[in-house]
Amino acid sequence: MVGRFQPFHKGHLAVIRECLGKCDELIIVIGSAEESHTMRNPFTAGERFQMILSCLTPEERLRILIVPIRDVNRYSVWVNHIESYLPPFDIVFSNSDLTRSLFKQAGYGVRKTKAYNPKEYSATEVRKRMVAGRKWSSLVPEPVARMLEGMDARQRLLDSGEKPARR
Amino acid sequence: MVGRFQPFHKGHLAVIRECLGKCDELIIVIGSAEESHTMRNPFTAGERFQMILSCLTPEERLRILIVPIRDVNRYSVWVNHIESYLPPFDIVFSNSDLTRSLFKQAGYGVRKTKAYNPKEYSATEVRKRMVAGRKWSSLVPEPVARMLEGMDARQRLLDSGEKPARR
Amino acid sequence: MVGRFQPFHKGHLAVIRECLGKCDELIIVIGSAEESHTMRNPFTAGERFQMILSCLTPEERLRILIVPIRDVNRYSVWVNHIESYLPPFDIVFSNSDLTRSLFKQAGYGVRKTKAYNPKEYSATEVRKRMVAGRKWSSLVPEPVARMLEGMDARQRLLDSGEKPARR
Amino acid sequence: MVGRFQPFHKGHLAVIRECLGKCDELIIVIGSAEESHTMRNPFTAGERFQMILSCLTPEERLRILIVPIRDVNRYSVWVNHIESYLPPFDIVFSNSDLTRSLFKQAGYGVRKTKAYNPKEYSATEVRKRMVAGRKWSSLVPEPVARMLEGMDARQRLLDSGEKPARR
Amino acid sequence: MVGRFQPFHKGHLAVIRECLGKCDELIIVIGSAEESHTMRNPFTAGERFQMILSCLTPEERLRILIVPIRDVNRYSVWVNHIESYLPPFDIVFSNSDLTRSLFKQAGYGVRKTKAYNPKEYSATEVRKRMVAGRKWSSLVPEPVARMLEGMDARQRLLDSGEKPARR
Amino acid sequence: MVGRFQPFHKGHLAVIRECLGKCDELIIVIGSAEESHTMRNPFTAGERFQMILSCLTPEERLRILIVPIRDVNRYSVWVNHIESYLPPFDIVFSNSDLTRSLFKQAGYGVRKTKAYNPKEYSATEVRKRMVAGRKWSSLVPEPVARMLEGMDARQRLLDSGEKPARR
Repeated sequence: MVGRFQPFHKGHLAVIRECLGKCDELIIVIGSAEESHTMRNPFTAGERFQMILSCLTPEERLRILIVPIRDVNRYSVWVNHIESYLPPFDIVFSNSDLTRSLFKQAGYGVRKTKAYNPKEYSATEVRKRMVAGRKWSSLVPEPVARMLEGMDARQRLLDSGEKPARR
Repeated sequence: MVGRFQPFHKGHLAVIRECLGKCDELIIVIGSAEESHTMRNPFTAGERFQMILSCLTPEERLRILIVPIRDVNRYSVWVNHIESYLPPFDIVFSNSDLTRSLFKQAGYGVRKTKAYNPKEYSATEVRKRMVAGRKWSSLVPEPVARMLEGMDARQRLLDSGEKPARR
Repeated sequence: MVGRFQPFHKGHLAVIRECLGKCDELIIVIGSAEESHTMRNPFTAGERFQMILSCLTPEERLRILIVPIRDVNRYSVWVNHIESYLPPFDIVFSNSDLTRSLFKQAGYGVRKTKAYNPKEYSATEVRKRMVAGRKWSSLVPEPVARMLEGMDARQRLLDSGEKPARR
Repeated sequence: MVGRFQPFHKGHLAVIRECLGKCDELIIVIGSAEESHTMRNPFTAGERFQMILSCLTPEERLRILIVPIRDVNRYSVWVNHIESYLPPFDIVFSNSDLTRSLFKQAGYGVRKTKAYNPKEYSATEVRKRMVAGRKWSSLVPEPVARMLEGMDARQRLLDSGEKPARR
Repeated sequence: MVGRFQPFHKGHLAVIRECLGKCDELIIVIGSAEESHTMRNPFTAGERFQMILSCLTPEERLRILIVPIRDVNRYSVWVNHIESYLPPFDIVFSNSDLTRSLFKQAGYGVRKTKAYNPKEYSATEVRKRMVAGRKWSSLVPEPVARMLEGMDARQRLLDSGEKPARR
Repeated sequence: MVGRFQPFHKGHLAVIRECLGKCDELIIVIGSAEESHTMRNPFTAGERFQMILSCLTPEERLRILIVPIRDVNRYSVWVNHIESYLPPFDIVFSNSDLTRSLFKQAGYGVRKTKAYNPKEYSATEVRKRMVAGRKWSSLVPEPVARMLEGMDARQRLLDSGEKPARR
């Protein structure tokens, strides 16, 4: 399963649990790993790693690998790029048509995942609310909310160029 | 703790267990993550990830994170590069003077690790024996030996340009 | 002559034939060679190479070289970049003011080319019609139309993120 | 002090003189050093270097270093990147929240600078007027005006894709 | 068929003709396309392109494509990299074990080629003789010999750092 | 004038003064600007910048520009790369045959410079003596000697992998 997790929200956690129901071991790829401090990608790979970890039970953690991978910005080598970073895998879970199409063409099984309350459980929505000074903490798992508050994530977003929305 | 693990051998495993005795949680960085199929770096990051995993007990796995990180080939940004990929850490275990020096200058605690039977427990030694057709499997943990045999690691090394040593 | 050929259409072919009337040998540079599977650049350099080849007569092929070249995204070295990939050339055919200006400043002859029915013979137009499910095959040479249909180019575009236009 | 100086205008010069009043020696970083011939970055680092130099008195020049630095497009290593290019410095002058935030976190002193007549003394405004064929020379120091006219900067902008504004 | 052609010699030409006897159309990949002016890679891709072209008959040229491709220095994505630049192909001719192994693993047919008088017909040998001021022209096809003399290839090698051998 | 200045020694200073006698203004390019902490390139561009500055009189400083430039590792674009970073220049001073050859071919004047006591005034010699614990300070200008001692340059070299020579 591939995601950017900017930040990790309740929809992500639901997808992880859905996938865990369908396979023995799950690899979570943190995409765009070298991006941070921008509007679309405010958090470093390390911070996102920590967000995901903070939400897993020990049982889940024993069945999950988390691997940050940088973008190559070149789709023709993207599958080889991902393969080189990961232990062998069989099935790719993704909601992106392009991701499923590229991996399918390379011989992998591909699956769509469900969207959980996508209007609210959306990283874009979380970032928008943070910048606007509105309530956002119910959209993310509780340990993530604490972590984001502790690091003053709102200031990070404002520094990265997000303008507070006018009322 | 940082290593290239080409391949993962019994010395590496001893260092991991030494470090686990000195800290709560350990991050193992797989360095040179994008190198593979060369003489010095025959195995992909994914293959090395799998080698390490195969040797950990569940208790160990719950206290360990494994993170593959590519080289930047520019020491002046190396500490920032590593930091961006990892959850927060306090102490760096390394036998490289340069690694300890760069992290110390950036404010981290640094520790030397012991060398365990360094003449034999050495990735260079393992690769040399493999190429020469000599016994190497006692130098690596048993699950790694099985994995390397299963993937015909010797052929990988020969294809990568290693010449079999003359007797 | 430089182009991206996403995809190769009848206007491109007309320009090639116009250029062949004005020089002995023509080099066709396939620009943005490493881009593919995106909205602006759906096809790989290899696919675009094949499209062009499929439209040339043997006589034309003997007077034409086709060379895919990646972007450098840095105009100050662009002329040196192109020069290093090509046999010697004298004249640059281009409709881009910047291209003509950079090569002129480096001492090359530069020529504008005609625009052939630019509203229809346009790669953007072809992609737009494909996505919308409208007729597009009359805009490209017949062998290209067959090739695009054979590879299900429409699906490629949709996977790359093009949204079908609403009626 | 960091800027792109596309082109160098009277507001930049005022900030330099403000900074010189607050420190002994000033380093001027020419950012995006490898960009040129685009709409946002029409001039090479060398041309921008020359613009700045042409406006300094000998006394100022003895207290100023000018250093062109390319972008890394990765904020997590940006501070280390800048540090590696510069002699030691204590304080960073910037109007960018992100720049101040990143350097502050790395332990530097940071200062906001004044904005001098920001509607007119703006590089965007200068470029806009140039393209539109309106008067722009009063917005830049006189030696810069002469230099830009001598190199036909307007044509550079038009070649780079700027469209002349309609009246 | 893949080669660096530094320079193109009679052994290369013999291999091309051998391959043409075994397939309908042949793609010649000029590897390390962005290297030049070094000891191992003195000539640009464009110069090497011209050397090859100068030796082909019109009949051969109609069955051959020549494609310069830069190195990626990352074997795990190398097959995808090559594929993205080339029209579809079935069989890879190579004397490199690694090349054959990587393409075989990706599902291609692979073939070894013969070595023609490898002690003399060797690019290393040609460069060595040139630098030493010894006769080399019999090792390369006649049009290549003329071209290398015309561009003063010996001086290029000396400038690139090759030291003339002592007698 | 181009150099790596690892470190800046008395021979470099003599060449600078020789060049100043032959031109009005001199640009000193600090090459390999992004290299540091390695055996061949122990010091950052910023440190080398500071070494040079510390040796110039105010009169010299008014006639000299210092510009750090990273390597591109591709000779075919190297001249364009350098040009983009520098104000206009006419003559290139260099002892490298390749540098003079590339700039000459691009239309610049080129000059060889004298070698001043090259056995002793050599950056390699300075680094070798430092590592071996022998006297080196007489080989560099006095302010550089003080600076290198202040930053414990010997330790930097040892950390970078230089082995102390055996007696």
